[in-house]
Amino acid sequence: MSAGSGNASMRPIRETLPLDEALALVLEAASPMTRTERVPLREATGRIIAAAAVAAVDVPPFDRAAMDGFAVVAEDTFGAGRYDPKILRCIEKVYTGEVPTKRLARGECTEIATGAPMPDGADAVVMVEESDKAGDDVRIFTPVYPRQHVGRRAADIAAGQSVLAAGDFLNASRVGALAAIGGVDVEVFAKPTVAILSTGNEIIEPGSPLRPGQIYDINHFTITSVVQSHGGIAIAYPPAPDNLPDLVAAIRQAAEADIVVFSGGSSVGERDLILDAIQQIGEVIFLGIAVKPGKPTVFGRVGTTPVFGMPGYPTSCLSNAYMLLLPMLRRMARLPEFRPQIVTAPLARRVVSTTGRHQFYTVRIENGTAVPAFKASGDITSMSLADGYIEIPAQTDIVEAGELVDVKLF
Amino acid sequence: MSAGSGNASMRPIRETLPLDEALALVLEAASPMTRTERVPLREATGRIIAAAAVAAVDVPPFDRAAMDGFAVVAEDTFGAGRYDPKILRCIEKVYTGEVPTKRLARGECTEIATGAPMPDGADAVVMVEESDKAGDDVRIFTPVYPRQHVGRRAADIAAGQSVLAAGDFLNASRVGALAAIGGVDVEVFAKPTVAILSTGNEIIEPGSPLRPGQIYDINHFTITSVVQSHGGIAIAYPPAPDNLPDLVAAIRQAAEADIVVFSGGSSVGERDLILDAIQQIGEVIFLGIAVKPGKPTVFGRVGTTPVFGMPGYPTSCLSNAYMLLLPMLRRMARLPEFRPQIVTAPLARRVVSTTGRHQFYTVRIENGTAVPAFKASGDITSMSLADGYIEIPAQTDIVEAGELVDVKLF
Repeated sequence: MSAGSGNASMRPIRETLPLDEALALVLEAASPMTRTERVPLREATGRIIAAAAVAAVDVPPFDRAAMDGFAVVAEDTFGAGRYDPKILRCIEKVYTGEVPTKRLARGECTEIATGAPMPDGADAVVMVEESDKAGDDVRIFTPVYPRQHVGRRAADIAAGQSVLAAGDFLNASRVGALAAIGGVDVEVFAKPTVAILSTGNEIIEPGSPLRPGQIYDINHFTITSVVQSHGGIAIAYPPAPDNLPDLVAAIRQAAEADIVVFSGGSSVGERDLILDAIQQIGEVIFLGIAVKPGKPTVFGRVGTTPVFGMPGYPTSCLSNAYMLLLPMLRRMARLPEFRPQIVTAPLARRVVSTTGRHQFYTVRIENGTAVPAFKASGDITSMSLADGYIEIPAQTDIVEAGELVDVKLF
Repeated sequence: MSAGSGNASMRPIRETLPLDEALALVLEAASPMTRTERVPLREATGRIIAAAAVAAVDVPPFDRAAMDGFAVVAEDTFGAGRYDPKILRCIEKVYTGEVPTKRLARGECTEIATGAPMPDGADAVVMVEESDKAGDDVRIFTPVYPRQHVGRRAADIAAGQSVLAAGDFLNASRVGALAAIGGVDVEVFAKPTVAILSTGNEIIEPGSPLRPGQIYDINHFTITSVVQSHGGIAIAYPPAPDNLPDLVAAIRQAAEADIVVFSGGSSVGERDLILDAIQQIGEVIFLGIAVKPGKPTVFGRVGTTPVFGMPGYPTSCLSNAYMLLLPMLRRMARLPEFRPQIVTAPLARRVVSTTGRHQFYTVRIENGTAVPAFKASGDITSMSLADGYIEIPAQTDIVEAGELVDVKLF
């Protein structure tokens, strides 16, 4: 936007908040979603179910054979042996998906496939391997006890039982449990929408040729990527205007989303304009965090909508998205806390950190060591050529070569 | 399908393969995708780039101010101090997105915003905090060295440089790197398609009321979920027919996908039919794995397409999908190996395992202990009510209460 028209309008950030305090404030402003929507079961994976799912049916809905073989009256098989078989008369054959039509009497059996309903009168199944059929006569070589090889009605789920609780994360088996009780679709919490606005007159969308003084928008894409990967819907907004009334109007509109993220512009003047706009129609919660990179970050609220003003430098913007936006988004989406994969490795070279600022420091894993990959906050390659990052606490100045560090993989 | 019309057609599984050997055979049959497709950058997260991305432009494309302040000739500031400022004449003001029009001479400066191009003649920036402007006179309170607070052209990426290599996973910063060089879309490897076929006459799709003897299809949904979560596209096929010629035709058609997964039917007769069909037009690679649950698993190939015949019981089917289909799918999708989150906890109760079979045993985490959650292979609640699973090696019979186990979270 503007190159500050003098010192009066430039308010450099002097007070900064420790990262943990900033994160606490961000999480405090994160209200878990209450909006819900109905999605087909085939598209429900990764979503959060909004209400308990209660079975209207028994699963399985009938006693069924758990093995291929012969449904019998268990007592008829007592004493059977390989050289002393019991002989039963086969009265019917039941395939899966069919229903037995004949009730078993003593001395009788029904040939049955795994999953087929047990005939009335039968209380066990003899495995086919333990039998020999010749005509209607079936020789039984082993005794079975009552209920052996029978899957009992409602053994998996009983009608009236709650198979999932509100708030459960829908993984494969839980989607399966909904299918088991006949679900076709499911009510889930809506994904938080995130309005992403670029600022900065130098920023243009990839696709057009660069004119002198212009660079391509990076932050829009990195924020979109983080949002999509952590349960949100990224909504692209037009670039933010560079005068206060229009910016206020733009923020008002963007605040219809669940979260607003400004990204782009990096100068003190631009930050001030966003600050003024938030103050005019909302509340600034903090301004500046003791992190490196990423210090000049504004966080506030317009109505109930949290608003981030991310620093313009791509690495600063993205590292703050990982450290602040991601946890907020997941909490609002009701997703479990994110745990990045961690690789512990010795640091290949000494790293000197800025005292008093929590440092997000990118590294590559090479030959089992963590090799510093950070160039400058303005360089997206500081992150894109890295495998992950280490965090250096505010009170630590130096991490020596050879020290073991926990690398959080991207 | 059929309830085996006698022992002759029933071939119970007697030879089983250890899990690691089965997995090796499955991975051997997994050819990484060579098909590619073009996707917009906004939808590229999580995909694998198919060719190196080479920059056509320098990023940044010009020397730029890294701070708000004044572009100067560094030498003009040497010796400046708070009580001994140097005074320079401001000749221009440059906003971001603009281009300086005046070349700096000694004794002159240009007011400049972060990100704006440096004027010719200038070689450093004095931060606004270290200056004081009155009219055109700017007092400079600190010396700067050449290139201080200047972001140099191509410092991030130089034209001709490869910013990503073929096969790189597109995370947020890598999508950002593509945006930085002006990318609008990107060529990525296509996702493997997985044809999912249900078998079993008792299986019906959720949505219709159950008739006697019927149950709802679960495996179709659990497999779909695993496929979608690990880089594949699940394609629903009509239920597999229950006669050999039609089944052969169905497999031929399904084999146009990159992977075929049969799921559902559980009887020996059904397995045999799938086996016969695969043998008729392809090759059976193995039949039966020494795992529990999940032993009766068929794996083969039709043309170059791997074909799984998963056991019908929901837990058996899904645990095998985790142990075999998931690694195959990720290898074909060129995704990094999956590492589930692991929680180490003491086992709450003794678990007795089947000797000679690798056991996949579900548990819940309760009060920091791993509580056995497994009911029966037929019960989807064995998994849906669990938080994860432990694996008990084939040679281990018993895991005692209190022993520490690694729980792989779902």
